Amino acid sequence: MNLQAQILKMAKDARKLSYKLALVDAQEKNRALKFMADALVENQAYIIRENTKDIKAAQANHLAQALIDRLVLNDKRIAAMAESLLETMKLKDPVGELLETITRPNGLTIKKVRVPLGVVGIIYESRPNVTSDCVGLCLKSGNVSILKGGKEAIFSNKAIFGVLKKALKKTKIPQNAINLIESTDRAAVKYLLELEEYVDVIVPRGGEELIRFVAEHSKIPVIKHYKGVCHVYVSEHADLNMAHAITINAKVQRPGVCNAMETLLVHKDVAARFLPVVAHELKKSGVELRGCPITKKIVKQGVKKATKKDWSTEYLDLILSVRVVNSLGQAIEHINHYGSHHSDAIVTDEKGEAQEFLKAVDSACVYVNASTRFTDGYEFGFGAEVGISTDKLHVRGPMALEGLTTYKYEILGKGQTRS
Amino acid sequence: MNLQAQILKMAKDARKLSYKLALVDAQEKNRALKFMADALVENQAYIIRENTKDIKAAQANHLAQALIDRLVLNDKRIAAMAESLLETMKLKDPVGELLETITRPNGLTIKKVRVPLGVVGIIYESRPNVTSDCVGLCLKSGNVSILKGGKEAIFSNKAIFGVLKKALKKTKIPQNAINLIESTDRAAVKYLLELEEYVDVIVPRGGEELIRFVAEHSKIPVIKHYKGVCHVYVSEHADLNMAHAITINAKVQRPGVCNAMETLLVHKDVAARFLPVVAHELKKSGVELRGCPITKKIVKQGVKKATKKDWSTEYLDLILSVRVVNSLGQAIEHINHYGSHHSDAIVTDEKGEAQEFLKAVDSACVYVNASTRFTDGYEFGFGAEVGISTDKLHVRGPMALEGLTTYKYEILGKGQTRS
Repeated sequence: MNLQAQILKMAKDARKLSYKLALVDAQEKNRALKFMADALVENQAYIIRENTKDIKAAQANHLAQALIDRLVLNDKRIAAMAESLLETMKLKDPVGELLETITRPNGLTIKKVRVPLGVVGIIYESRPNVTSDCVGLCLKSGNVSILKGGKEAIFSNKAIFGVLKKALKKTKIPQNAINLIESTDRAAVKYLLELEEYVDVIVPRGGEELIRFVAEHSKIPVIKHYKGVCHVYVSEHADLNMAHAITINAKVQRPGVCNAMETLLVHKDVAARFLPVVAHELKKSGVELRGCPITKKIVKQGVKKATKKDWSTEYLDLILSVRVVNSLGQAIEHINHYGSHHSDAIVTDEKGEAQEFLKAVDSACVYVNASTRFTDGYEFGFGAEVGISTDKLHVRGPMALEGLTTYKYEILGKGQTRS
Repeated sequence: MNLQAQILKMAKDARKLSYKLALVDAQEKNRALKFMADALVENQAYIIRENTKDIKAAQANHLAQALIDRLVLNDKRIAAMAESLLETMKLKDPVGELLETITRPNGLTIKKVRVPLGVVGIIYESRPNVTSDCVGLCLKSGNVSILKGGKEAIFSNKAIFGVLKKALKKTKIPQNAINLIESTDRAAVKYLLELEEYVDVIVPRGGEELIRFVAEHSKIPVIKHYKGVCHVYVSEHADLNMAHAITINAKVQRPGVCNAMETLLVHKDVAARFLPVVAHELKKSGVELRGCPITKKIVKQGVKKATKKDWSTEYLDLILSVRVVNSLGQAIEHINHYGSHHSDAIVTDEKGEAQEFLKAVDSACVYVNASTRFTDGYEFGFGAEVGISTDKLHVRGPMALEGLTTYKYEILGKGQTRS
C-alpha cells in the first residue's frame, strides 16, 4: 500500500472507531492513562536509547543547540511525561457533561451535552513529549488521535508511541484509538490534510512556517496560532518594582516561546523613571533593545531604532521593542493593531484602568499585574495542552480537554410535531 | 472607488468599530432593537413597495413559484420580522457572561468571560427576513455585521436595511455597526471572503451550491451546513401511531427545508404493520417513495427502487427514501454513514434504546419521539438564528447569540512571574 492509501485507511478506520470510542466510560480511559504512565517509566532505558539516535542525527546535521536541547530525553523528562498523563487522568472526564437544559412551551426537553470531536490530527515538530501529552488528552476526551511528528524526533516518537500503544493492550480500548504516521515524507501531511470527511480538526504545533503550511493546505478546520507578539504595558499608575519584575520575567525567563513578551509599552509619565533602570537590567541579561524615538532619548545608549516592522515581529529571541505611549487608549490601540491577539498584560494599581484594558484588548489572554508567560495549559490547570489558539472560533487560549470536545443537542419528546 | 476597494474599506472600518461595539452595554443595544422593530412597522408601505419590484423582476425572470413565495413581503411578514427583533431584545445579553473562574495555587485568578466575535459576514439568498434577523442577532451580541443578500431580493434588502440603519441614528451606536453590500456582482462575495484579517466568521445561508462556493473561496472560517439528510427511525418498540404522525410531519409539513426528513428507517419486526399504512398516507400527500427491496415487497405498489445515491440525497421535495433495517445498530450505522449529521430521530418507548440512539448518533440534534422539524433557532428558544451548523467546531445546531460570541481569559495577578 502506498503512503497516500495508508493514510486514507488510517483516517477511515479512525472515523469508524471514533463512534465507539465516544461511548467508552471514564474508568476505562483512566485505566489506560495509568498503564501508559507506568509503561513510560518502565521503558525509560529503551526510549532514551532510541532518543540517542535522534540526537546523533541532529548533531550530524548541525541542528541548532536550542533545537537539540528540546529533543533530548532523560529520566527526568520521561518522568514528567508520565506525570502529565497522570494529571490528565485525574481531571474530570468532559464527555457527557450536561451543559444546559432547555424546556420549551411545547414540552420538548433540549439537553446540550458535551461529546468528543471524533478524530483529531496533530502535526508537530521536535519535542517528543508532545507525543504523550496529546495521546493522553485525546484519549481522555474520547477522541481518536492521529499524530505526525517531526522527522528530527522520529526515533523518539516511534519509541514513545510504541510503548503507549502496547499499554492499551491491557484495556478494552482498541489499540488504533491512537495512531502515529511514521513516514518522514512531508507529503504525508498533505495527504492527511485532504481528508475532511474523516478528520474533524487539525492542530499544528511548531514554528510559523509549519503552521502556515498546514493552514494553507488543509481542507480540515485548523486550530492554531501563527505567532505570539505579546505586550506588557506599564501604566503611570503601575507599581514600578512589580513592572520591573514582570518585564524581566516576560522577556528573559524563556525568550523562545510564544507567550514571551516582544514589545514593552510604557506610559510617558513614568518612562523617564522606569526605562533606564529596566533597560540596564535587560541589557545585562543580553537583551537587544529597539526603541521608539522617545525611548532612545530616555535610555540614551545601546538602543537601536525600532522600525514599523518591529512592532509586529515575533523575535523568539533576546530582542525587545520598546515604545513610549501617551495614554491607555494608545497602548490598547497599539496592541490591537500590531499584536497577535495572544497574551498581553497591563501593570497598574488603578482598578478602572485595569478593567478598561481587560475589556478593550482583543486577545485570548489579558493579564493584570502578572507575566504573560502564564498562558499555558498546565499553568491554567488543564493538565497539559494540545496547543494554544489565537483563533476566535471554537477555542481561544490554551487548548486541552474541553477544546477537544463539541456538543450535541439531545431532544426528548412525547410525539411532538411541528405545526 | 471600485467594488473591491469599497469592500476592503467596509471591512477595515468594521474591524476598527468592533473594538468599540464590544463595549456597548445591553441597554443601548436593546434601545436600538426596539427602534428598529418600530421602524419596520412604520415603514411597512415603503418596504412592500420596494419588495414589489423584486417580485416583478422574479416573475419576469420566471423564477420558480416556491422561490417567489419566499420573497414576498406583506403586513404579516413584516410584523413577524419586527416581532423577532423584539424577541432578540428580550434575550439576555451574552456579552460579559462569566463562564468560569479558575483560582490557581500561585494566587492567579483566571476568569473566562464571553465576548463578541468581532465582525460577522452573512451571505444569503432570497428571504428578506434574514436581513433583519441577522442584523438583530449580531447587534445584540456586540458584533459588527456585513450582509450580502441575493440579487433576487435586492430592492427588499436595501429597503429593510435602510430602515434599520436609520433607526440606529436615534441611539449612540454608530450606523456602520451594520453594513449591507449593495452590489449584486458575485465578485463582491469573493472580495469579502479574502479579508481574513478583518472578518472573524462567515455564515452562508442558502442552497448547497452557494455554501460550497463560499466554503471553497473563503480564507475566513465558515460556519455552515451543506445539507440536511435527516432520518426518522421507527423501532420495533415504537408507538406506531406516534411514529405515523412524526413521519408525516417530518416529511410533508414543509419538505423544502433542511430539517425535513429525507430517509425513513423501519425495524423489520414492525415494517409489515407500519409501512403500508404510512405509505398510503404519504402517497395521498403527494410523496414519491423510493424503497429498499424489502420495502418494495411490503408496500407492493408505487414504490420506486432506491439506489445507493438515494441514501445520501437531500431531496428538499416530496420524495422519501425508505429502508427496512434489522436492528438499532444497523439504523445507527446507516445514519452515521449516509446522513449529514444534522437532525435525526428515533421513535421508541424503550428507554435504553433511546439512550443508545442519543449517544451513538453523531448529529447536531438527536431526537427521541419528536419530529426533526424542530431544529430551528426560534423553536429552541434562541429568538432567531443566523444559520444551522453541522460543523463540530465552535457551534453545532442552530446558531444564534451564543454562537456569535467567543471568550477571552482575564487573568488577575499581584505581580506573579513564572519560575
